Amino acid sequence: MPFSASFIIEILGTISFTVSGVYSALQKRLDILGVLVIAFVTATGGGTIRDVLIGVTPVTWMRDLTLPCVILITTPATIIFRKKVRDYKITLFLFDAIGLGLFTIIGLQKGLSVSLHPAVCVVLGTVTGCFGSVVRDVLLNQIPTLFRTEIYATPSIAGGILYFVLLPVVDKTVVEVICIIFISGIRIIAFTRKWRFPSFL
Amino acid sequence: MPFSASFIIEILGTISFTVSGVYSALQKRLDILGVLVIAFVTATGGGTIRDVLIGVTPVTWMRDLTLPCVILITTPATIIFRKKVRDYKITLFLFDAIGLGLFTIIGLQKGLSVSLHPAVCVVLGTVTGCFGSVVRDVLLNQIPTLFRTEIYATPSIAGGILYFVLLPVVDKTVVEVICIIFISGIRIIAFTRKWRFPSFL
Amino acid sequence: MPFSASFIIEILGTISFTVSGVYSALQKRLDILGVLVIAFVTATGGGTIRDVLIGVTPVTWMRDLTLPCVILITTPATIIFRKKVRDYKITLFLFDAIGLGLFTIIGLQKGLSVSLHPAVCVVLGTVTGCFGSVVRDVLLNQIPTLFRTEIYATPSIAGGILYFVLLPVVDKTVVEVICIIFISGIRIIAFTRKWRFPSFL
Repeated sequence: MPFSASFIIEILGTISFTVSGVYSALQKRLDILGVLVIAFVTATGGGTIRDVLIGVTPVTWMRDLTLPCVILITTPATIIFRKKVRDYKITLFLFDAIGLGLFTIIGLQKGLSVSLHPAVCVVLGTVTGCFGSVVRDVLLNQIPTLFRTEIYATPSIAGGILYFVLLPVVDKTVVEVICIIFISGIRIIAFTRKWRFPSFL
Repeated sequence: MPFSASFIIEILGTISFTVSGVYSALQKRLDILGVLVIAFVTATGGGTIRDVLIGVTPVTWMRDLTLPCVILITTPATIIFRKKVRDYKITLFLFDAIGLGLFTIIGLQKGLSVSLHPAVCVVLGTVTGCFGSVVRDVLLNQIPTLFRTEIYATPSIAGGILYFVLLPVVDKTVVEVICIIFISGIRIIAFTRKWRFPSFL
Repeated sequence: MPFSASFIIEILGTISFTVSGVYSALQKRLDILGVLVIAFVTATGGGTIRDVLIGVTPVTWMRDLTLPCVILITTPATIIFRKKVRDYKITLFLFDAIGLGLFTIIGLQKGLSVSLHPAVCVVLGTVTGCFGSVVRDVLLNQIPTLFRTEIYATPSIAGGILYFVLLPVVDKTVVEVICIIFISGIRIIAFTRKWRFPSFL
């Protein structure tokens, strides 16, 4: 994927993840620092877990400060304009969906770069895209919403599998673009149609 | 310990840990993906924490996919047959006890392989055998049962100490077998006699 | 800073962190092992997270057993004398404040030793000084107090910034001493005057 497109999506995705972190934190009445930590963890947690599990350390956000800066600007802006930001719910959801696609592919490729099995790479893509919200929920003392309410990880997993299906037959850049569109697309459809997995018992 | 015996116990232990993860997740009404993540984390969490703390990365389950496959088969099977599986409670408890023994010794030996102090190796053995349930409980938003209801970690710790007591005087393979039997034995006795540690205040 | 002074503060700080862990655990009616794990995690958790994120493994407490021994002695002593220990609340608070200062500077310098950006080093200092309590609270199933009730991380952050402001103009040992006094001092003033950050919504 062209670097500049990837870079812009990464920033938009990070903004969206940060905003969602800020709202979750505000609901629990945290102070400024608490809100900042939760926002940071929501936006960077998935990639951090991935880096720690595969041993790529110091973790990514310590070596490239672009995303930390985005979070540091987005957090106070969201707090101050928290009533106005709500009007952009749909825009933020789109950023989130496209961010999920990009982060999944980034995570998957990091797995490939350390020669892991494709199945493990799919898991790493999903962890990168989805597990920031798990760390956020653990810190906010609630059961991760990822595990029960919405179809969020499934597009990630499906897109990761699609990546390895297409890779032998299509150019790598094209595969990346297709998979990101595919993941964002399923995520948006699943959300608008309120698809859900069954729960048991 | 002969490789094949170790391998079979590892699989039986993993099945038992997975089943316990599935039941815990079902009680919290998670969806399929949530149940799978909890089952996975219950079965692999202890070893993953150990690997991350000692810096053996990518963590073990990423490099050998046997146990992930066992978990991937056991989870849906347990969900589907969840009423029947309950009849095998005692069998599963025995798998769990023997798994605790084996995982403790595996963890302890990983510590030795990176030249850590015996006391740290005993801790690593205990972490490997017992901390999957801690990660599970944290994700399910409950205080880890390891910390309050049952004697679970104590056999692990005692068996780890026994390992270093016997090692200078007995053949290594024999020490391994003795320690696994010892840990499983104490675990079974502690469970059937409902031994408990006191809590305070 | 002279090694011996640093060493003594490290032990006093660890004692204080351990005692605070023991009290938190006792309130949740954990058994002996649970209390020990919580005490251990409170005292070592910040440094452990730092080491894992920057890839310095095996983590520090596995390579130098001084602090684990301090925790292992302090925990049962605190349990046994738990009514008497309360009379030393102010002493323990002073140990805690000075420990916060020292651990912050230790963490910051670990970041420098792997060539990270000063801003990241300030974060690592704060994580080292403050995040043991976050792990403790997550394991005890409560929202981290760090995120909402007291000004705890702020002195750490301010002291970290001061470190890099002074470093070009003052001798390194002097900078260390000034920053530790500065962090402890703000922490003590913030506590006694009950400073708080605002929370929102």
